[in-house]
Amino acid sequence: MNQSTPEPTSYYERHIFFCLNERKNGEDCCAQHKAQEGFERCKLQIKEAGLSGKGHVRVNKAGCLDRCAAGPVAVVYPEAVWYTFVDAADIDEIVESHLKNGKVVDRLVVPDHLGR
Amino acid sequence: MNQSTPEPTSYYERHIFFCLNERKNGEDCCAQHKAQEGFERCKLQIKEAGLSGKGHVRVNKAGCLDRCAAGPVAVVYPEAVWYTFVDAADIDEIVESHLKNGKVVDRLVVPDHLGR
Repeated sequence: MNQSTPEPTSYYERHIFFCLNERKNGEDCCAQHKAQEGFERCKLQIKEAGLSGKGHVRVNKAGCLDRCAAGPVAVVYPEAVWYTFVDAADIDEIVESHLKNGKVVDRLVVPDHLGR
Repeated sequence: MNQSTPEPTSYYERHIFFCLNERKNGEDCCAQHKAQEGFERCKLQIKEAGLSGKGHVRVNKAGCLDRCAAGPVAVVYPEAVWYTFVDAADIDEIVESHLKNGKVVDRLVVPDHLGR
């Protein structure tokens, strides 16, 4: 029934991926820095706000995003904005400002030079 | 040393996420349809082409992307192009055409109406 459109739009308006990678060898990793708690808090807030799903927001688990030096990290696409976070207040601000209102939280953006 | 730039660019030129979700209850899921093989093949090809890393391509594991009706699926950001694939030839075409050369593989794009 649907025809494909020449200009693709994003299936999700915003798609945030949390690194939940857990290193087997005991090395430092996002999973040791409350990444799972951040993911769950974000997911719950988006769900409770009724913003989950097509045309809205998807909160996703991801493997290692390979920017460990800034961990724990999450990336919001299609904007390609990378965040680091340390506590619940950081997650709340990402949700309220960026995921709900499209306004980047500058103070939590990962500096470009931080990689693996 | 680096200063942050006012116009953010994507840390990875292209970031592809493969759904590797494995449902506990035995329900159908991407993991039952060679998603892992697709991910590994894609990752190896990008690595062998010397295209891994900042400014280039990242091939990522992801949890459920919630478009199960089209599974197995992968999404390429920041373009927000969703793919389905059934075999190695599909992966090879996504790598050669899209990830290396930026040309969308129309025949493998997920129809917009396919969701969960």
